[in-house]
Amino acid sequence: MAVPDIPPIVLDRGGAAPLGVQLAGELRAAAASGVLRAGDRLPSTRALAATLGISRTVTAAAYEQLLAEGWVAGRTGSGTFVTAVPAATAPAAGPQRPAVARAAGAGIDLRAGTPCVEVLDRSAWRRAWRAAADAAPDAAPRPEGLPEFGAAVVEHLLRHRGLPADPADVLGTAGSTAAIAELARTLPRGARVAVEEPGYRRAARALAEAGLTVVPARVDARGLVVDALPAGLAAVYCTPAHQFPMGGRLPAARRMALVQRARAEGFLIIEDDYDGELRYDVAPLPLLAALGPDVVVHLGTASKLLTPTLGAGWLVGPSAVRAAVLGHRDRTGSRPSPAGQRVFAAFAAHGDLARHLRRLRRELAGRRTAVAAAVGAVGHAVAGDAAGAHVVVPLAGAAAERAVLASAADRGIALDGLARHHGAADRGPRGAGLVLGFAGPARADLERALPVVADVLAAHAPV
Amino acid sequence: MAVPDIPPIVLDRGGAAPLGVQLAGELRAAAASGVLRAGDRLPSTRALAATLGISRTVTAAAYEQLLAEGWVAGRTGSGTFVTAVPAATAPAAGPQRPAVARAAGAGIDLRAGTPCVEVLDRSAWRRAWRAAADAAPDAAPRPEGLPEFGAAVVEHLLRHRGLPADPADVLGTAGSTAAIAELARTLPRGARVAVEEPGYRRAARALAEAGLTVVPARVDARGLVVDALPAGLAAVYCTPAHQFPMGGRLPAARRMALVQRARAEGFLIIEDDYDGELRYDVAPLPLLAALGPDVVVHLGTASKLLTPTLGAGWLVGPSAVRAAVLGHRDRTGSRPSPAGQRVFAAFAAHGDLARHLRRLRRELAGRRTAVAAAVGAVGHAVAGDAAGAHVVVPLAGAAAERAVLASAADRGIALDGLARHHGAADRGPRGAGLVLGFAGPARADLERALPVVADVLAAHAPV
Repeated sequence: MAVPDIPPIVLDRGGAAPLGVQLAGELRAAAASGVLRAGDRLPSTRALAATLGISRTVTAAAYEQLLAEGWVAGRTGSGTFVTAVPAATAPAAGPQRPAVARAAGAGIDLRAGTPCVEVLDRSAWRRAWRAAADAAPDAAPRPEGLPEFGAAVVEHLLRHRGLPADPADVLGTAGSTAAIAELARTLPRGARVAVEEPGYRRAARALAEAGLTVVPARVDARGLVVDALPAGLAAVYCTPAHQFPMGGRLPAARRMALVQRARAEGFLIIEDDYDGELRYDVAPLPLLAALGPDVVVHLGTASKLLTPTLGAGWLVGPSAVRAAVLGHRDRTGSRPSPAGQRVFAAFAAHGDLARHLRRLRRELAGRRTAVAAAVGAVGHAVAGDAAGAHVVVPLAGAAAERAVLASAADRGIALDGLARHHGAADRGPRGAGLVLGFAGPARADLERALPVVADVLAAHAPV
Repeated sequence: MAVPDIPPIVLDRGGAAPLGVQLAGELRAAAASGVLRAGDRLPSTRALAATLGISRTVTAAAYEQLLAEGWVAGRTGSGTFVTAVPAATAPAAGPQRPAVARAAGAGIDLRAGTPCVEVLDRSAWRRAWRAAADAAPDAAPRPEGLPEFGAAVVEHLLRHRGLPADPADVLGTAGSTAAIAELARTLPRGARVAVEEPGYRRAARALAEAGLTVVPARVDARGLVVDALPAGLAAVYCTPAHQFPMGGRLPAARRMALVQRARAEGFLIIEDDYDGELRYDVAPLPLLAALGPDVVVHLGTASKLLTPTLGAGWLVGPSAVRAAVLGHRDRTGSRPSPAGQRVFAAFAAHGDLARHLRRLRRELAGRRTAVAAAVGAVGHAVAGDAAGAHVVVPLAGAAAERAVLASAADRGIALDGLARHHGAADRGPRGAGLVLGFAGPARADLERALPVVADVLAAHAPV
């Protein structure tokens, strides 16, 4: 595996972005476009710095960034390798355009976070878009979102999440992360917000970029450890239905304790229900938003359930929080896009959403079983509940985690490790393991990938 | 005109948002839903404070906010009046849902910023949505935006804005204000950014909310006064094609001078081309992005050209800036919604966008002529070029401006004044006048409103 020719890299020394950010962007673009391919070894930071006539600090910062984002993996003594797998490229919209051919040699992406679009009923999907096309274009969309979208969300929350809500309680959002960023703007600058650790790093970054102080919140196999939350918080971000990434479901007693603390201490709970619809064993527990509607902001999204094409999510919360979010939208002119809301509402209106959800649960339950079986065949176990679209496979330590990621990347499979879901500030003991997403790839690709994953895992002792 | 019953207002004293923000939100919601109607007089700040058992500071802050947003207008000695006109409500998406009836007694909104959806060819619109429905749902949308959207934008920029660009230079955005907020995140906190004054206040607020220091940039009848820009800037936000709101087109010499200063002083130019496609007299001047592709970020949007339903805009700029924006999207997981990009690309693919633009120009040129004639008949003049979707009618002072807005509101017409487009920090001499948007209402409503506007203006001396 030779060091590939690095594509032409143009850095703008007078540019607005630091050189390291620019360099990371160029390399990321090369990996995304296929100029760099999974398994390619990058030159050493020293060699690349010499080639480009820049400082090694810059190349090291760029590699560090790409490592954190999962585009490359490093192995002690043998360099830095591209793990990037080109994301599924959408076919062109117009019927005249040729479908984009699948990049030859592209690998299989088993990182978490991608939905299962394979089971979507394309006739129902087309029907929804056609219905959405009948509505007149908006001159001035409501900042709350379209009324029919709010109605569809209310119906969904009641039927599938057991949450009674009024359409007036619902705000459309551009998705969960966008909603987190909006909520962040309604909290005082510098306020302390606890985020599960390991947890959803993009939530932590969105909060930090808004000027809030993110503090780690301890997590165990059952989710957030409420008793370990520090005092003096303005908000707590958590994923009670299916802790990301560890997979625990927050027990009822902890739910009550969290709501009680929020009331007593005056903090806001942000309940990110990113995949709460996906359970394959027992019924879900009551939402935090049902237990504490006065202190909980509930976030949902169509991105995991259906597809991020719609850019549609929702927020249900106390009126003061909604007013503050709307105030921010009014001041800055930001609005969630109505186009995806229309399609979602039309998809839901004919029962297609409920049908899709049943089909999705069946498919993902089957995939999870296949993953657990493949991993189990080589003596490893999966952690977390029978829920969602990813599992954690615990490993003996950080070195084993890095080795497994690198071996899988060598064989064309992009995997994700627990390390990436910890913040840099967290210096406590960390679990190690794979985070394996099973929804994104086509079923056939998943079945091709699992023996390879098992083979790679077989070289490492189970925990 | 009696003081209406104020709807039940629930304020949460322990809530995350200040009481003034909550109160403004409640009143705004009442106005938006029609509980409060255009022309209704609000209780005095003192009376409302007594009714709600809160401090008068809170009620005054809420009224101030609603005044700034244009929901209410104040008249010395006679109180505060609702000017809000319910925004056009979109019909429901599903064919089974009844269309929302137009609120009885709703007025006519002549505030700027709303596009002309009346001339949109609904068959072409439906065709675009049907074509968009054929594409598979995305599993992981590219953070840059869909490739077919980039291609459509490149074609549009070349044909209609004279800007040669490569699809790789284009980033999809959620709209201009969202793009400004993203660009703000790529500049160092506290950096100074000049914003035209009077100018687009939401741009200024989005920059300020991102922690930047907004400084006013002087504007005259020909747009930004480049020589008056202070030193030490990180960026300059401007609207060179059609200065908002004054309506000037930046002369070629100032364009060159601005690009030269940006290069010499290392600042970034944000060129907001919000309605640059709409000129009815001479050809547009070269875009700043064509003169200085190394220092200019060009922003465009489908919201004014077509409809905000799509939530689709674009950004063309230097690779370092694009990389920085993509870095922010990667860190926080934010993405422009692909749904509207698909529809836009499909609408453009069949020539429907070019046809729509021709039809839109014809319609708006006719409307502008009608506005100028109505205003001219009572001795007033319109300022600004024969372009865009709004005009300014200069008035003798701030008192005359407030009086005209209030009289028009009394007669069911929402107008906007220049005062609202100045920042609070700007203590210099201010021009006064109406900002009259003529694209938003139906043509018939515009023709009903113009005699009323003329009648109201006739009571005031022209400038």
